[in-house]
This record gives sequence, C-alpha cells and structure tokens, in this order.
Amino acid sequence: MERIASKTVHEGPRVVVRHERWRHGDGGVAEREVAEVDDAVTIVPYDDDAVYLVRQPREPVREERLLELPAGKLDVDGETPLECAQRELVEEIGRRASDWEELKRFYPAPGFATEAMTLFLATGLERVEGHEPDPEERIEIVAWPLDDLDGAIAECVDAKSLVGLYALRDHL
Amino acid sequence: MERIASKTVHEGPRVVVRHERWRHGDGGVAEREVAEVDDAVTIVPYDDDAVYLVRQPREPVREERLLELPAGKLDVDGETPLECAQRELVEEIGRRASDWEELKRFYPAPGFATEAMTLFLATGLERVEGHEPDPEERIEIVAWPLDDLDGAIAECVDAKSLVGLYALRDHL
Repeated sequence: MERIASKTVHEGPRVVVRHERWRHGDGGVAEREVAEVDDAVTIVPYDDDAVYLVRQPREPVREERLLELPAGKLDVDGETPLECAQRELVEEIGRRASDWEELKRFYPAPGFATEAMTLFLATGLERVEGHEPDPEERIEIVAWPLDDLDGAIAECVDAKSLVGLYALRDHL
Repeated sequence: MERIASKTVHEGPRVVVRHERWRHGDGGVAEREVAEVDDAVTIVPYDDDAVYLVRQPREPVREERLLELPAGKLDVDGETPLECAQRELVEEIGRRASDWEELKRFYPAPGFATEAMTLFLATGLERVEGHEPDPEERIEIVAWPLDDLDGAIAECVDAKSLVGLYALRDHL
C-alpha cells in the first residue's frame, strides 16, 4: 500500500491530525484520519520482591489514579527508546537499572494513532539519591508484590501496562 | 479532579481534538490535549480448535497485514458494547456466537485518547450463511490453533489483541 495524499488538519502540542489517502495493492483507495503522536516506552522495573508501578491521573479517560507501569514519550530530539526508558525510570520512580532487555514493540491504537510502544524489562534497580518527583505529574509509586502479579493484572485497565505485566509473568 | 475549560480545536469524521484545562485536588491546574474517538470492542471468538483472528491493513502505523482479534467501534447510535461486538463478529469473520462473556474494560491510550475498550469472549460459534466480507475492509480471517496461543502472542503487535490473547490463555 502507498500513501498518495496527506493533509495536516490540526497541529497541536501533542497531537497532529492528518487526512490521508492510501492506495492498496488491489487498486482500491482508502481515506484515513490519522492522529500522529510521539512514540513511547513502557518499563517493567522489578526486583526480587516487587514490580514498581505508578498511580497517576489520566484526564482523557477521567481517571483520578490509574494503575500503570512507568512510561513516557519519546519527546527529546535524537533520544533512542532505551535512553528514553532510562530517563523516565529515574523521573517517575527515582530508580536506575543496571540491566535492560527490550521485550516487545507494539501499537497501542493502530486504528487511528501512529504511536509505537517499546516495552523494556529493567532489573538491577538502585535508588537515585535526592530524587524528587515532579509535582506536576502527581505520580504515586506502588511497589506491588511480585507474588501477586495476578492481582495487578486484575486491577490494571491500561493496555500497555497489561501487556507489560503479562509479559513479566511469562518471563519469570 | 474537575474539568474547568474545554475548547474543540479539531472536529474530524473520526477524531475530535480538544484543549482542556483540569483542576486537581491539590489546587494545581493541568493543560491537556485530548483526542476524542469512539469507544470500541474487541472480541475473542474461539471453539475447540482455534481462536479466530484477522489480518488487515492499518494505515496509521503503515502495517499491511496486522494480526488482530476482531474489533470495531461503537459508531451506531444507541448500540451497547455487546450489540456492537455481536455485529462486528458477523461483519469481520462471518460468525455468530451463542455465548458471550464480558472479560475486561480497559483504555488503549489513556495518555491522550478518550477511547474505552470492552473485551468479550465469544463461544458457541456458528457460520452465518451467505456472509460476504466487506471488500473495503481487506480483512483476511485466520483460524489460529488454540494449542499455539503463545505463537499468536509472539507474532501479535496490537495492544488490544495482546490483552485479549493473554486473557484467553488465562481463561482456558
């Protein structure tokens, strides 16, 4: 398939919307409204006892304290997904990890959004001294017992975090 | 938290973008760019031998044949998620199901999109006579062997379908 036309109809700070026309191999033409957003990363940080989750407000879905894995957008120029994951792990839960493993790359909403998500396991965790969470993010850190992963999966209603928690359970 | 301002900045056929301002319990104010899209359903249809998947083009992520569970948008006025799932199952894979179970409700992209996804198990499958797939959808039906769910999970890179396949594996 081939994109034969594209027109930007909205250009905001986080979301760009394009009306696109695609020609398929069968000759047919499809019109699509596409939301371009930054690609992102999700991190599964765990030690012998716990997987580290966060609770944070998610205004778009009117949730006050959604249970999620640490995650963030690739919004720094030239940053790789791994560098972004390392930065976000410090920012969100105040920890560094010595060992990183890329587990999966997937699409959260391929029907309308361009976003690609890279999922990392992070182990060898160590606290970053003097770390202060960003008050603007309103993030609460949750050390969830590793022997109750099923409880986290049951409570979690965030797709990327569900994929990460299931993948962690398979990995262990 | 409370939404204290909202301005529609783009109104397209599938995506509406709003610039919103939210006041949190701590008194702080957050600006958010929110993409409003229809809520949706994902269906896990299976029988003794197979789970029924589809491959279809997903232009936003430039994938020619993404492996997914059957799914669809709540874009018919007054339709419930279950009714939508029943309609989409016929449209996408030409089958009815006698038994439906709601498994989970989750958010594909809560950082920027309003979409809520309801996941259903569908069993007691029966072919619908004379069903013709919509050529515009370019959907290929895949009967994936139930004893190789791990293979489907490994190949799948669509978040909602990963959640559905993992949930099916837990259910079996």
